[in-house]
Amino acid sequence: MADMTIEAVKWIGGTDGVLEIIDQRRYNPAFIKLKIRSVEQLHEAIRTLAVRGAPAIGVAAAYGPVLALQWLTGRPGVPEVLNEIIKACDYLASSRPTAVNLFWALDRIRAKASEVVEDPQTTARGLQAAILAEANAICREDVEMCRRIGENGAHLIRDGFGILTHCNAGALATAGQGTALSILYEAQKRGRQFEVYADETRPLLQGSRLTAWELQQAGIKVTVICDDMAGFLMKQGKIQAVITGADRIAANGDTANKIGTYSLSILAKQHHIPFYIAAPSSTFDLSLESGAEIPIEQRDPGEVIRCTDVPTAPEGVGVYNPAFDVTNGKDITAIITEKGVIERPNTERIHVLLAETAGAVDDAST
Amino acid sequence: MADMTIEAVKWIGGTDGVLEIIDQRRYNPAFIKLKIRSVEQLHEAIRTLAVRGAPAIGVAAAYGPVLALQWLTGRPGVPEVLNEIIKACDYLASSRPTAVNLFWALDRIRAKASEVVEDPQTTARGLQAAILAEANAICREDVEMCRRIGENGAHLIRDGFGILTHCNAGALATAGQGTALSILYEAQKRGRQFEVYADETRPLLQGSRLTAWELQQAGIKVTVICDDMAGFLMKQGKIQAVITGADRIAANGDTANKIGTYSLSILAKQHHIPFYIAAPSSTFDLSLESGAEIPIEQRDPGEVIRCTDVPTAPEGVGVYNPAFDVTNGKDITAIITEKGVIERPNTERIHVLLAETAGAVDDAST
Repeated sequence: MADMTIEAVKWIGGTDGVLEIIDQRRYNPAFIKLKIRSVEQLHEAIRTLAVRGAPAIGVAAAYGPVLALQWLTGRPGVPEVLNEIIKACDYLASSRPTAVNLFWALDRIRAKASEVVEDPQTTARGLQAAILAEANAICREDVEMCRRIGENGAHLIRDGFGILTHCNAGALATAGQGTALSILYEAQKRGRQFEVYADETRPLLQGSRLTAWELQQAGIKVTVICDDMAGFLMKQGKIQAVITGADRIAANGDTANKIGTYSLSILAKQHHIPFYIAAPSSTFDLSLESGAEIPIEQRDPGEVIRCTDVPTAPEGVGVYNPAFDVTNGKDITAIITEKGVIERPNTERIHVLLAETAGAVDDAST
Repeated sequence: MADMTIEAVKWIGGTDGVLEIIDQRRYNPAFIKLKIRSVEQLHEAIRTLAVRGAPAIGVAAAYGPVLALQWLTGRPGVPEVLNEIIKACDYLASSRPTAVNLFWALDRIRAKASEVVEDPQTTARGLQAAILAEANAICREDVEMCRRIGENGAHLIRDGFGILTHCNAGALATAGQGTALSILYEAQKRGRQFEVYADETRPLLQGSRLTAWELQQAGIKVTVICDDMAGFLMKQGKIQAVITGADRIAANGDTANKIGTYSLSILAKQHHIPFYIAAPSSTFDLSLESGAEIPIEQRDPGEVIRCTDVPTAPEGVGVYNPAFDVTNGKDITAIITEKGVIERPNTERIHVLLAETAGAVDDAST
């Protein structure tokens, strides 16, 4: 993976630039790049999962206000620019409800804008440049965060391991080389011999479409299975670790991730297989005591009763389509973050790691 | 369900008749009937799942030798006819490896043929008529078996229940009104108010294509979910019972059924939800001590990396596609058979029920 060239989210140019994303809605894994030129287009891209994965959504959203400002006409002053930034942030916050990185990134842009306008010398152009710089910082930090998660988790992967993953928590889900898959890329770099089983991840098949493709590109042995095969693999002893990403982690370690993750955590526990979550610290939402408070996005029923756009169920049938579920913190063996590994996560241990390293991180980001 | 008119497998006519099946390979749930006129066509129909479901496969296969005899030319004598019957049985036995009802039905045809030829008065026509009569008996008994399973299990369904089922164990899987779903039809007849969640059941979507359609026809409230959503439904308290069919049950209660059933059994146990298997006594294979001895069919990788014929994964990726898995007998709350209910199944309790009722069954089938 030394030559990882997948760039799921990439800003091209300055304040008049454009956001380029890999369109991840295709069933055919030949990827097409999309140029996003407005905040409306970006909202649609996030909502329809053209850009997806909690960290990538955060990075993409951070550039939204920059795009919004390109559409201001006349010679807007600082108040107009600030107003447009806030409006764009509010609007983008409505694109998807579960992944917290989206809100985290938008909050950073809002906070940066507020900070900059406190200086009476600030110009409209200066404000614009400042929020682009902040978005670029978020993007750069995401790349670094991915790398560190890989380094922090690589020792968990041993020779001969079969590793099960769900959905896509790879380069396609971040600006860098992924979260869960970053650990595998780093383990590969260290010469570990292992193989990966990728749950296809219905309804939208991020596992078979995206993870399988990404691992194949990296030269890692990958086998696609249907989601209902995971338990049987475990029973047969083919799985030594389960690793997934996360969309939001509550203060006690309860973790929202792609629907199906909860089932895997229970199956892993039953088979005494370690169950790991890999996620940046921006995925933690310490304002929520437990996972019961995490809002779960319900998506279009059509995703379930169609596959590759072909109807697969009778018309008029009932459908339930939660995009995420919540894994109990107590069933997670460890959470691997860019700041370190939280083993047997609970409220205290999570608090300690995030607080301990807060200073160091502030240093890193300045 | 008083007017259940789904006839998945039906013989039309006498020894020169034809086997009519509902073609269950379609994604569009508008069913098309197929007329099967040769043993080769039947082998293909079973192998490609045009006819599927352990009991339906058994019934369909029973008519195979009758079809084979229609193609004998000249004036075959008893030895030629007997030879053709044995040949057809051997050939059909190679169509699918896991469901034991296939072998059970073919063994009955073989045994009937052997019995009839022991009488020196037997003619070729008489032998032909005798095996058709035996196939018709297997079909009639299957209808009766379905009804009795429904009656034996209906009390398990209470008002307000959410019931999860996997794959299709309904009228489409039998000559009658199903096994697992027969219990629901009988509960409906008794006025019970409940709703059903149907796992879509990848890779071949028997749940969304077949079970959802069948329950909808019957006026039972049904909601389709992706297989990876089952655990989250349980966590939310939406499921009060899991019921599935079976393809082969070992002497100790270990049960092979559609891939994904094992995971459901573990998830149900974890959530203290009863897990039921509904199957006729012909599904038991007492020659196998445990499920470890049940052969598991591996099917075409193309089933996993395509959905509705559209590729869903990159070319050249590895695929694992077991058609079945094995649920531990100790994790099954009860097995509902036409002969009665085996609670907490183990070798002794299974032996007792099957032995106790052996006389009664022999009576019924003569």
